[in-house]
Amino acid sequence: MKQDNLIWQKKDLLGTYDLTREEILYLLDTAKSMEEVLERDVKKVPTLRGKSVVTLFYEPSTRTRTSFELAAKILSSDTINISVQASSATKGETILDTVKNIEAMSVDCIIVRHSMSGISEFIARECKLSVINAGDGSHEHPSQALLDLLTIRDFKGRIEGLKIAIVGDVLHSRVARSNLFALKKLNNTVNFVGPVTFVPKDFEQFGAKVYHSLEEGIEDVDVVMVLRLQKERMGRCFYPSEREYASFFSINTRTIKYAKEDAIVMHPGPVNRGLEISSDLLDSDRSVVLDQVKKGVAVRMAILYTLLSGGRIEDSHK
Amino acid sequence: MKQDNLIWQKKDLLGTYDLTREEILYLLDTAKSMEEVLERDVKKVPTLRGKSVVTLFYEPSTRTRTSFELAAKILSSDTINISVQASSATKGETILDTVKNIEAMSVDCIIVRHSMSGISEFIARECKLSVINAGDGSHEHPSQALLDLLTIRDFKGRIEGLKIAIVGDVLHSRVARSNLFALKKLNNTVNFVGPVTFVPKDFEQFGAKVYHSLEEGIEDVDVVMVLRLQKERMGRCFYPSEREYASFFSINTRTIKYAKEDAIVMHPGPVNRGLEISSDLLDSDRSVVLDQVKKGVAVRMAILYTLLSGGRIEDSHK
Amino acid sequence: MKQDNLIWQKKDLLGTYDLTREEILYLLDTAKSMEEVLERDVKKVPTLRGKSVVTLFYEPSTRTRTSFELAAKILSSDTINISVQASSATKGETILDTVKNIEAMSVDCIIVRHSMSGISEFIARECKLSVINAGDGSHEHPSQALLDLLTIRDFKGRIEGLKIAIVGDVLHSRVARSNLFALKKLNNTVNFVGPVTFVPKDFEQFGAKVYHSLEEGIEDVDVVMVLRLQKERMGRCFYPSEREYASFFSINTRTIKYAKEDAIVMHPGPVNRGLEISSDLLDSDRSVVLDQVKKGVAVRMAILYTLLSGGRIEDSHK
Repeated sequence: MKQDNLIWQKKDLLGTYDLTREEILYLLDTAKSMEEVLERDVKKVPTLRGKSVVTLFYEPSTRTRTSFELAAKILSSDTINISVQASSATKGETILDTVKNIEAMSVDCIIVRHSMSGISEFIARECKLSVINAGDGSHEHPSQALLDLLTIRDFKGRIEGLKIAIVGDVLHSRVARSNLFALKKLNNTVNFVGPVTFVPKDFEQFGAKVYHSLEEGIEDVDVVMVLRLQKERMGRCFYPSEREYASFFSINTRTIKYAKEDAIVMHPGPVNRGLEISSDLLDSDRSVVLDQVKKGVAVRMAILYTLLSGGRIEDSHK
Repeated sequence: MKQDNLIWQKKDLLGTYDLTREEILYLLDTAKSMEEVLERDVKKVPTLRGKSVVTLFYEPSTRTRTSFELAAKILSSDTINISVQASSATKGETILDTVKNIEAMSVDCIIVRHSMSGISEFIARECKLSVINAGDGSHEHPSQALLDLLTIRDFKGRIEGLKIAIVGDVLHSRVARSNLFALKKLNNTVNFVGPVTFVPKDFEQFGAKVYHSLEEGIEDVDVVMVLRLQKERMGRCFYPSEREYASFFSINTRTIKYAKEDAIVMHPGPVNRGLEISSDLLDSDRSVVLDQVKKGVAVRMAILYTLLSGGRIEDSHK
Repeated sequence: MKQDNLIWQKKDLLGTYDLTREEILYLLDTAKSMEEVLERDVKKVPTLRGKSVVTLFYEPSTRTRTSFELAAKILSSDTINISVQASSATKGETILDTVKNIEAMSVDCIIVRHSMSGISEFIARECKLSVINAGDGSHEHPSQALLDLLTIRDFKGRIEGLKIAIVGDVLHSRVARSNLFALKKLNNTVNFVGPVTFVPKDFEQFGAKVYHSLEEGIEDVDVVMVLRLQKERMGRCFYPSEREYASFFSINTRTIKYAKEDAIVMHPGPVNRGLEISSDLLDSDRSVVLDQVKKGVAVRMAILYTLLSGGRIEDSHK
């Protein structure tokens, strides 16, 4: 299963759509060795010493930015944070000019979060530095999908031939999209579950099955992946109220029984307790939400390592 | 006097209320060795290499955050800053979920500032990582009290049997509370001095003497600790105006004469020059305000070192 | 040409006005050796290990702050960022008290950006730590001028006896001022070009030639330095509209023909594409804007190295 023969070719990580089955497994395997580093008392390896990584976030985020920053620091890379409020964006510079400037400063990698779908692909095409998409609009969020896959593999013993339900606001979710692409490449069955406004029937063309009933949608699945509900979308034509949404689609100790007995529950965070997921279920043994966070650091270390240590990957693996 | 026999047991630093006399002295002694590091040309020791520290600030702060961040960096720890504006707090996540997530990322220590009294104790109970309270509401701010004690000890030659006046808005001051608890444990006399609205008579039950007259309150004291006045509280039932407050309770070259001739003047900062303290007194030889700041880095190094280097403290002391 | 004999004396870098010809050349030469470090695979030298640098920015900035932070990190210095929004400035502390506090924390160098002209000189006089002016009002921005000179020298083969036009809002531009002082010391001819409201005739007393016609102002020059137009000044008595400004003073493929055939085009960024400079010219071979950014890191490394490694400069050069 270990992808020892693969020689990594890509400069960027823009989405799971572009990744091959082998590349996905390669990143997951690399993340496993990173998890060992995280278990050490001294969590520090010199791998990316003398490299510099910039996080460029046009949307607020605690966990993704912190997770990437920690990953980079543990690998001994220098890190610089740029958030949109404290930046030139307020002065009207284009994002491409901003990135070109960062690149000119001899920065090796930029981690971008932006509200515009596809922006990281555009940047990657125009620049020589490595671009990691940390979420672009409702398009992709590949590092989240990879950590989800790693979590599933570790808890279910495999990451192929499973049945996974993704529940909630699929329409606006880059997490749902990145997971779908990755999971399908590994021959899993993916169910999209939610109200019609959030889960258009069209999405079946991407290879998912679409369900508008929670009971049917999570029946017999191995994994229930709950999406965060953007409260600001409530009452704005998508759904009448939080309460009504919760009564039909909330995952809780009662509704989880539709799934397999040993199904695990996942959530990309941050969680609205009592809305898309109940508090007691979130804090129960079935929930692997904090495991996802933990594996997130390992996966991001693997991504940075794979993109930035170049041809030397094979050597340093031996 | 050196507390060589003590083996540190506590995972967290939440307040001085919970500290024993021996623990306080242990931290002060450790801070003295840290001061030596700060005198070096190369201010860097590898003690906490491979550890990671997160500052999680829900209230703005220059000095406390910077002081902790510097302390951590000098000890070679990785540091990550999270401030509330750029974080998930705006997305409605509970603070406990935020901290649990940070903990899941293999972070070793979190330094929290929050407006809610007692919040750091709540977090510490629910998490395994070390929690340092960097100010919680009007409850405690223990690192400030410890640096104050270190300053007093260095300038007065001892930290027991002294008479110390704390002047100003005691009611809302976590600095006053943390100092009171620590100073009483070392058998000092503490006077709380200020108008009735800021210094309730009830506070005598904590072991302080209460004075509503500056002249009486600082008579014969060794140390005058001036509290910062929150201007936004002025005119809102606590006190009629800044001018009236200053005329009765400002510490200046005239009023300082009520204290002992060699009394030192302290302030936790940031200072309102000309309000709670006069500019000329602040800049005079009696003021040790910048010494407090300098010792603050050493004290925070001592705290981080003591909490994070675990059982190895005794060894590395030899 | 190499300034091997100079022993650096200044604690601070406040402006180019105070620099001698020899000091300017010394910094440019030092920057050249730093450029070699930036070419390495491992961009890290231990020169400033154990030193700490604080960026204190009262105005937003991506490029200058990031450039200094990267420069400091590559030299192995610790760095701490303080931006005005998250700081005590909101609590009414004076800037001098803020800096004195930072100094008391054993910080070696502060990099200040502030809207008030002359503020960094005031701070430098009152403090012992090194102060680098990263832009103070419309006064000076010396690191920008130095990187501009380095760029000119590298592209024109020399930095003396050239003819350079600075075009745009000279009145409010610290970049224009710092460049003028530095360029004049090296016996270059400097033309200030722009509308009367932006380029007062008085400026000739500083040694520049003043032109209100673009055609005349850039005739036969070796370098066209385009200034950023502050859009917020438009329509507020300085100039009627962006469109009118652009029609008379925009540098584009047509107007650049007034300059020498091999003239290079520079801009301190961030750029308003299509306003002060056209997009096609900016992206053409004549534009050295990204080279400026690249050299900016090297120049800032040279500045930090020169100010902070003290008497050991000569030794480490051999």
